[in-house]
Amino acid sequence: MKRSSWRLLVAAGAVFALALEALPCLVRWLLAGRRPRREVLFFPSQVTCTEALLQAPGAAPARPPAGCPCSLPHSESSLSRLLRALLAARSSLELCLFAFSSPQLGRAVQLLHQRGVRVRVITDCDYMALNGSQIGLLRKAGIQVRHDQDLGYMHHKFAIVDKKVLITGSLNWTTQAIQNNRENVLIMEDAEYVRLFMEEFERIWEEFDPTKYSFFPHKQHGH
Amino acid sequence: MKRSSWRLLVAAGAVFALALEALPCLVRWLLAGRRPRREVLFFPSQVTCTEALLQAPGAAPARPPAGCPCSLPHSESSLSRLLRALLAARSSLELCLFAFSSPQLGRAVQLLHQRGVRVRVITDCDYMALNGSQIGLLRKAGIQVRHDQDLGYMHHKFAIVDKKVLITGSLNWTTQAIQNNRENVLIMEDAEYVRLFMEEFERIWEEFDPTKYSFFPHKQHGH
Repeated sequence: MKRSSWRLLVAAGAVFALALEALPCLVRWLLAGRRPRREVLFFPSQVTCTEALLQAPGAAPARPPAGCPCSLPHSESSLSRLLRALLAARSSLELCLFAFSSPQLGRAVQLLHQRGVRVRVITDCDYMALNGSQIGLLRKAGIQVRHDQDLGYMHHKFAIVDKKVLITGSLNWTTQAIQNNRENVLIMEDAEYVRLFMEEFERIWEEFDPTKYSFFPHKQHGH
Repeated sequence: MKRSSWRLLVAAGAVFALALEALPCLVRWLLAGRRPRREVLFFPSQVTCTEALLQAPGAAPARPPAGCPCSLPHSESSLSRLLRALLAARSSLELCLFAFSSPQLGRAVQLLHQRGVRVRVITDCDYMALNGSQIGLLRKAGIQVRHDQDLGYMHHKFAIVDKKVLITGSLNWTTQAIQNNRENVLIMEDAEYVRLFMEEFERIWEEFDPTKYSFFPHKQHGH
């Protein structure tokens, strides 16, 4: 072999070795074909019309977003982005929420349930019975809900979509928080975070099994 | 050139093209030299002794963790991991916290201030004056604090260490939450998330400039 061929061989070898070293990174990049979803939503959210997103299937023919006659703006907002992330669910939705009273988010969860998505909800017993809570409506619709009987609060605010996307942050799912508070929500398509939060969900789900509820719990209230 | 050399050239070209395509991924991997920090802490945290972590410089010679004579366990816990992540700060610490009353976390922040780390705190005006709040102590120590005068809550719970690591989640920095609640905290060394949360911090920092405070704010209370 000529000298130039040897040089070529060494260069190719070096590039190959480098590529091999970075293989996990490379494989992830090749398999994904696109960047995994990463989004941060900040609140308060502008109040916008979310009707177009929340049209039930089989209801009146879907109107285009601008078609709704209400006087609210029809632009994107942090709330509409959060709704979109949830409504992307095709097989499963896990919710682990301290407070849940937003009517729009409640409708989105009911829509998913109607579409056959397996929805499971964990919540805090102190907040689920408050006026305006969505929990009663979800239960009436046939969605499984479990709650704590603990000393402390079930203070998580996360959702897992199709066991693929984690939605988590400071936001309680209330209109007060969405429209008035400074809040953040991360939307992360990230296998590692999803695995850790799924494990936490399953741990709590088992622990809050209704067969384990005591009828006279000694819940203490504090903050 | 021989046929085998051509083949080699084409192969090397293909590998090179592939490497070039994956360059951003590759560069990140080569530059980092290690995996960026990603950790999830779940609470409630076991109550452990954190004295060894919180020794002030110049105080009695640092005792090993097992040396503290108290009866608490001296193992790692979610709280000790959170303290470690904060105490790693060398130049700056931004805190944006709804409620801050944990004495251990308060001591950690004061320690960093003593070490010359530039600490800035944003908090919610409804919680800062409550019994046990750390905010007054931080101010007394000379740390800059700004608070809202808004209708809604400043409900964030995040910290940014050295403009490199984002710490965020559901956890308010109170002993009640640390020891009793179900909570999560993400620790992420992630340039993109840090940038977005730094921008949010600076936006709020400017907006809560004391020169803009009104003396008779019309804050409404709700949840």
